[in-house]
Amino acid sequence: MKRKGILIVVSGFSGAGKGTLMKRLVQDFDNYALSISMTTRNPRPGETDGKEYFFVSREAFEKQIEENGLVEYASYCDNYYGTPREYVEQQLELGKDVILEIEIQGALKVKKKFPSALLMFVMPPSAQELKRRLVGRGTETEEVIEKRLKRASEEAEGIEEYDYIVVNDDLEECVKYMHSLVMAAHATPDRNEELIQNMRKELEAFSK
Amino acid sequence: MKRKGILIVVSGFSGAGKGTLMKRLVQDFDNYALSISMTTRNPRPGETDGKEYFFVSREAFEKQIEENGLVEYASYCDNYYGTPREYVEQQLELGKDVILEIEIQGALKVKKKFPSALLMFVMPPSAQELKRRLVGRGTETEEVIEKRLKRASEEAEGIEEYDYIVVNDDLEECVKYMHSLVMAAHATPDRNEELIQNMRKELEAFSK
Repeated sequence: MKRKGILIVVSGFSGAGKGTLMKRLVQDFDNYALSISMTTRNPRPGETDGKEYFFVSREAFEKQIEENGLVEYASYCDNYYGTPREYVEQQLELGKDVILEIEIQGALKVKKKFPSALLMFVMPPSAQELKRRLVGRGTETEEVIEKRLKRASEEAEGIEEYDYIVVNDDLEECVKYMHSLVMAAHATPDRNEELIQNMRKELEAFSK
Repeated sequence: MKRKGILIVVSGFSGAGKGTLMKRLVQDFDNYALSISMTTRNPRPGETDGKEYFFVSREAFEKQIEENGLVEYASYCDNYYGTPREYVEQQLELGKDVILEIEIQGALKVKKKFPSALLMFVMPPSAQELKRRLVGRGTETEEVIEKRLKRASEEAEGIEEYDYIVVNDDLEECVKYMHSLVMAAHATPDRNEELIQNMRKELEAFSK
């Protein structure tokens, strides 16, 4: 019986540690594939095109929108972010659990289009800790940090739409926990239709 | 922040290994409490009143029904089975995850009364294996085995109502997996309202 991949959407406040968690999931377990988003924002120091993101122009991004080449897209802080469709669909068919990092608007759009997608929201242990991490990163101006905190406050409104809340207190624990949430998702009836149908057929045969 | 207990309902075909799995969960992890059901059926060899079940008369059982002393009850193979309410509520308040073993009719009634209950359905790897286990137990007549297989076929109709399907192929793996399903359930937003509300309040305070 072929196991189908799960489309996993990871969201969370900027500074909650999503990126590190996702990298570790892919590194520690062999069932994951990481989707690479497309964005019109500028690369941060150390970021490479085709690794963290595909960095493209507004024109190139809008062409993808027109051609239905994106699973979802949204704009955030005056930039586009989107998920190229082809790679995601290929990996799901191969049985890989595909992880997308998307902010909340995009996540809810994905859930509408793919009701069996698994939505996880990563939180820091407290808002105080979130602020500390944003300041500690040292790559952003105070204005950007304030904007992010305000944005976090807005995003917090949608948390109930997610399937799972993950508190990123200890990285090692959190990676294992996220993995167990994905493993749990593989046990829902809607993801085991073939198993259930086969059991029914066999049992009916016995009862005759 | 106090963690609330989850009401866990375990169902599955007779012979799927529910009883052993539940005993192991309670034995291996400290977050579980096992609910003891009340029944009017006769004890099997080796069963003790107050351990596997509270074995009572029809009259005593019907008195409990009248006094609303049961979370749920149902009849199966001409006997009553039910869950005494008081112990379950006490344990949930103490933060314990309370495991009930109930057949499918009762499980669905519990889900209606307690929408946040977690329903797990335990299956053997195949119907053939189920039959083998029922015959292997050696305590039942062929007539009873046939009745159980027929019943299993009927129960299989309701599997989609469960939150999770657990295939009991390897006992050790299955115990760990069931535990991870319960841990996953603790991460849903409806079970983390306090955490979410606190985060919102803190973030709003920052944004002012």
